[in-house]
Amino acid sequence: MFYTIKWTDDGVSMIDQRLLPEEEVYHLYKDYRDVAKAIKEMVIRGAPAIGIAAAMGIAIGVEKLSDDISKEDLEKEFIKICNVMKETRPTAVNLFWAIERMKKKFYDVMEKDFKEIKKQIIEEAKKIHEEDIFCNRKMGHIGQLLIKDNWTILTHCNAGALATGGYGTAIGVIRAAWEYGKKIRVFVDETRPYLQGARLTSWELVKLGIPATLITDNMAGYFMSKGEIDCVVVGADRIATNGDVANKIGTYSLSVLAKENNIPFFVAAPVSTIDFNIKSGSEIPIEERDRREVTHIKERVIAPEGVDVKNPAFDVTPSSNITAIITEKGILKYPYEINIGKLRN
Amino acid sequence: MFYTIKWTDDGVSMIDQRLLPEEEVYHLYKDYRDVAKAIKEMVIRGAPAIGIAAAMGIAIGVEKLSDDISKEDLEKEFIKICNVMKETRPTAVNLFWAIERMKKKFYDVMEKDFKEIKKQIIEEAKKIHEEDIFCNRKMGHIGQLLIKDNWTILTHCNAGALATGGYGTAIGVIRAAWEYGKKIRVFVDETRPYLQGARLTSWELVKLGIPATLITDNMAGYFMSKGEIDCVVVGADRIATNGDVANKIGTYSLSVLAKENNIPFFVAAPVSTIDFNIKSGSEIPIEERDRREVTHIKERVIAPEGVDVKNPAFDVTPSSNITAIITEKGILKYPYEINIGKLRN
Repeated sequence: MFYTIKWTDDGVSMIDQRLLPEEEVYHLYKDYRDVAKAIKEMVIRGAPAIGIAAAMGIAIGVEKLSDDISKEDLEKEFIKICNVMKETRPTAVNLFWAIERMKKKFYDVMEKDFKEIKKQIIEEAKKIHEEDIFCNRKMGHIGQLLIKDNWTILTHCNAGALATGGYGTAIGVIRAAWEYGKKIRVFVDETRPYLQGARLTSWELVKLGIPATLITDNMAGYFMSKGEIDCVVVGADRIATNGDVANKIGTYSLSVLAKENNIPFFVAAPVSTIDFNIKSGSEIPIEERDRREVTHIKERVIAPEGVDVKNPAFDVTPSSNITAIITEKGILKYPYEINIGKLRN
Repeated sequence: MFYTIKWTDDGVSMIDQRLLPEEEVYHLYKDYRDVAKAIKEMVIRGAPAIGIAAAMGIAIGVEKLSDDISKEDLEKEFIKICNVMKETRPTAVNLFWAIERMKKKFYDVMEKDFKEIKKQIIEEAKKIHEEDIFCNRKMGHIGQLLIKDNWTILTHCNAGALATGGYGTAIGVIRAAWEYGKKIRVFVDETRPYLQGARLTSWELVKLGIPATLITDNMAGYFMSKGEIDCVVVGADRIATNGDVANKIGTYSLSVLAKENNIPFFVAAPVSTIDFNIKSGSEIPIEERDRREVTHIKERVIAPEGVDVKNPAFDVTPSSNITAIITEKGILKYPYEINIGKLRN
């Protein structure tokens, strides 16, 4: 098959998601700044995958430090590395969660000898990766209970193996249902401007042999109104404690259309996607990306010069539009404030 | 500037809308079958423009007939030409309306000598064109009354000069408001898969100097929820007598999002877009177009092989989601059944 990201003795290896589905190219990163650049430029994307990449980036940054570094300089360098990682993308909270977790581990082991620090920092990054796959499988197992036989499921963007450590959140739920023998099929929004649905999700589903139908984003409402969609399952980039969900641009619109057509709307995300520091979605920063993503498809121009462009990469779906949030710790429903609160450590 | 379609002594001239905004290329068609092909392949598109093209195609078909044709053969050939035009695209009713009008004219003049028949058939096609521009200007004049100063207007697809005889329906309303000195700005949905918004509407608005912001289709809901959109104005491909509107895929979704966010939703279309033979939108045939429009952008592939594709070109917006329908005969509001009925000849 393929892998999204892998720790190797030579560095961090990632499939270049910008080139899919045309080319399957893996890059090897040996410098944490290159990992940061890869996140920023979307070689790797998807909230959980970004978290894993940041952790591995930090690990490789620490690994490359000179063995005779003083504790003081080590701490300085470590903070610097973390800050570079932090600056890559603003919306997915898994990034900050992973950085915080690496920080915690660093301060736990900081007094040990440097060889041991390196070892434990690398172990922690690998553990974040392994845990993510485990959480995905658990979420899939739990979430597939919500999926009925013969259902047609709509998904948006890519919340699959490519967006995570290797199994998927929303796609994890879908593939678990498929593995349990449910005869499902999937409608995939192409997800402009970056086309994660067309390029990545349909590529994953074709590889898995799950029946997939690609549509443009503006067709989803039409198929809902025709009764051809039984539920919506999407991932998340950040969840507020009131249950509001930031996810790929267009998710909010799908939630409104699902509500209008009485279709269940599910979000699948690990607990690491919950930002326990914010009360509502209005506090989530929305990344504005380059105009070129809208005006060009690859090198091809599709808009006239002189037109203004907006390119928000995410939107916020109010919790009132969400039927359930599927996590590795169970299915969350209204009242979200209380049920999310229970997950707080 | 540019023109969409023009009758010339040498044939029917059209700008190739498939090549915009990169290239401004005009084609000259001297055979009615080539005009039909141009409609089918979307060299020209937009409900009113399709009607004009069909009328001109019929005119050129008749013009090219041999002068010594018998009345019987003339009628046969005329019907054949009309049938070829009818088979081009199924959803826009203006096509069938224009064909019917040409038929009526043909039978009115059929007994005259052939030179006179040719002249009158050509005149009728040119009249349909001129009347369309006149209706657009009138619609603009009437419709701009609904647009307030400083409003931001969202539009979808292209209902501009390129979709009509030369002024525009939805864009006609917008440019009339602009000509009346209202400080408006326009958000343009790119309108996948064919990108009429990105390629055509933003190109027209840039040429007109009206501030335009291009977004992907899935961003519209986000900007509505942020309070950045004051109204939606779209065109129509067919209107049922209960006020249901078939228009470019994605229009239905915008209407639901506008309703959710208490934003007025306007449709601008000439009376020729009303199909007085159907009671509701469910009777409107929805054209399914080629999968390649979704899987490729120009020659560039954006989806994996093996994925299924759906490509409905239109959807139906229920009249309950429509604040008003702007026509050249006035503004229609609820109850549509009664108010549309009054327009029946």
